[in-house]
Amino acid sequence: MTIVADDAVALAARRSAHLEREIAENPARFRVLTGDRPTGPLHLGHYFGTLANRVRLQRLGVETFLVIADYQVITDRDNVGNLTDNVRELLLDYLAAGVDPATAKIFTHSAVPALHQLMLPFLSLVSVAELRRNPTVKAEAEAAGTRAMSGLLFTYPVHQAADILFCRGNLVPVGKDQLPHLEMTRLVARRFNERFAAGVEVFPEPDALLSDAPLLLGVDGTKMSKSRGNVIDLRDTDDRTAQLIRRAKTDSQRTISYDPDRRPEVSSLLLTAALCTGQPPHDLADDIGDRGAAALKTLVTEAVNEHLRPLRQHRQALAADPDYLRQILAEGNARANQIAEQTLHQVRAAMDMTY
Amino acid sequence: MTIVADDAVALAARRSAHLEREIAENPARFRVLTGDRPTGPLHLGHYFGTLANRVRLQRLGVETFLVIADYQVITDRDNVGNLTDNVRELLLDYLAAGVDPATAKIFTHSAVPALHQLMLPFLSLVSVAELRRNPTVKAEAEAAGTRAMSGLLFTYPVHQAADILFCRGNLVPVGKDQLPHLEMTRLVARRFNERFAAGVEVFPEPDALLSDAPLLLGVDGTKMSKSRGNVIDLRDTDDRTAQLIRRAKTDSQRTISYDPDRRPEVSSLLLTAALCTGQPPHDLADDIGDRGAAALKTLVTEAVNEHLRPLRQHRQALAADPDYLRQILAEGNARANQIAEQTLHQVRAAMDMTY
Repeated sequence: MTIVADDAVALAARRSAHLEREIAENPARFRVLTGDRPTGPLHLGHYFGTLANRVRLQRLGVETFLVIADYQVITDRDNVGNLTDNVRELLLDYLAAGVDPATAKIFTHSAVPALHQLMLPFLSLVSVAELRRNPTVKAEAEAAGTRAMSGLLFTYPVHQAADILFCRGNLVPVGKDQLPHLEMTRLVARRFNERFAAGVEVFPEPDALLSDAPLLLGVDGTKMSKSRGNVIDLRDTDDRTAQLIRRAKTDSQRTISYDPDRRPEVSSLLLTAALCTGQPPHDLADDIGDRGAAALKTLVTEAVNEHLRPLRQHRQALAADPDYLRQILAEGNARANQIAEQTLHQVRAAMDMTY
Repeated sequence: MTIVADDAVALAARRSAHLEREIAENPARFRVLTGDRPTGPLHLGHYFGTLANRVRLQRLGVETFLVIADYQVITDRDNVGNLTDNVRELLLDYLAAGVDPATAKIFTHSAVPALHQLMLPFLSLVSVAELRRNPTVKAEAEAAGTRAMSGLLFTYPVHQAADILFCRGNLVPVGKDQLPHLEMTRLVARRFNERFAAGVEVFPEPDALLSDAPLLLGVDGTKMSKSRGNVIDLRDTDDRTAQLIRRAKTDSQRTISYDPDRRPEVSSLLLTAALCTGQPPHDLADDIGDRGAAALKTLVTEAVNEHLRPLRQHRQALAADPDYLRQILAEGNARANQIAEQTLHQVRAAMDMTY
């Protein structure tokens, strides 16, 4: 489902190409805010879709804030799930994938009260009609079906504005469906500066960095989904990975070729191997030729396990040291709090709320 | 405009009479949360409508939390106004009227981040449909006219739930129009306990203490309103008070009688004097007899100035000591923060958010 107009996407893509050049020239000018809901361990789709890109930006020298959005777990479900485990798994995935806790700030929403206080002035800057029009809120409401939309889901774009603006993030890697959220953040920043700060820039208007996430399918040929059991988690063993790929859906054509439109399952497998090896999927297909699906699966299994080997080894070592994990999160939370309190201080000053 | 069904009001009134007996017997069982938006100094209507009742409860031994709701100033207007002055005036009115800073906690919203964090779980507990149905939100949206309703106004009942529940307030003095707000708070408390705390009572369901605010009119015979200049502020001088009452609208009948339905202006003046002197308005009317409006106005002026004299003297003394005022607010804010952080700690524990 496309919920954002093509021309808006094209514009964002051109702007992003320009931003990439600026990042390469002057990475210190940028601060990224991004994150995830802690609903379970990350899988290959997350890894190639967002995580690898975050690590790339960090390695270019861009300061990175990663929010573990624990409250957002309950936008569309009643229970928080096993948050203790889920936060731990997410943290392990981040660190194992190369997020550097010495420069990145990893924090949980629930630990940063001053961030949430920004919701109050920000909610005053947007109308109910504007919230209702937000295409992502609309789409998520439809996805929720007959379930009533919660106030938390409805106000989610404003909460995301608080995430991005509390740390003055000016670069937000997004997929095209998230473009409207960022527009809301830009609107909030602009209105805050105009209405409460006499035009002084308390908040920068952040830029969207459009990332073209590769479309990987689950091993059953449908959308990747933890609940369908069709995903390879980063933390999976080599054997579990092999087992999942052995089960992967292919098609009846023996000769392997890369053709995402007509052969989506085979092409998704080829793309996975391509992302892991750095070789073009067409070349990989040519190599396999008419050795068929079995040869393809062997290739993909080896490529995935090979690529993830250092990540998985690192992950295991980290998992054995819970004190270290707690320390990383405590430090990230402390740093996020410090920054949120500084920002809140400036917001209070702008709003004449220092008594 | 009546926005709450009569039977709900009757029920709340019966419950309130019962609560008054309980308060008299065991005041330590209760904790009141109440407050005001800092939009200007308080007038006689505020004083007899809510402030005097708060002081009464405090003197009975009920612990009192008073929120100066600075963010709520921008629910329905773009600018915060002169908040520094308005907060100071409100604080002076509270203290002058008898709020005891040794037991009451007076705090500003903007100073208590942990309170606002409660908005996140609470917003997940109510649906957009429930927010839309709230009669007070509806009424305030209508009052705002063609102006778009802000997200802050829309979510106001949830913010009020956070106000009441952060300090585990279990008694909220309200007028009948605010009954639906309290229903929202009760709903949030109940759902939080059920959904996130396995039925353990993290939050009590607060009771509404329905107060029958006397209907006082402005001196022009219309609703009291600062912008109409028809109100006697607590801080006004004797002369200004006399001047305002001299201008008061009466009617053409020389003989003074208490008849709120047919003689609203004269009756409002009599009621004002009655509230100040403790004498029934009928008796005051009989005393004046056919000496007419001039005698009535002299009586009312003396009654108001006499009643407010100690309050105004106290207020002047307090106003001369800005350091003391800052200290009172700093102490109230510190105490509110301490309690909000304790509550937030328990909320995080209930929601499995301690990592």
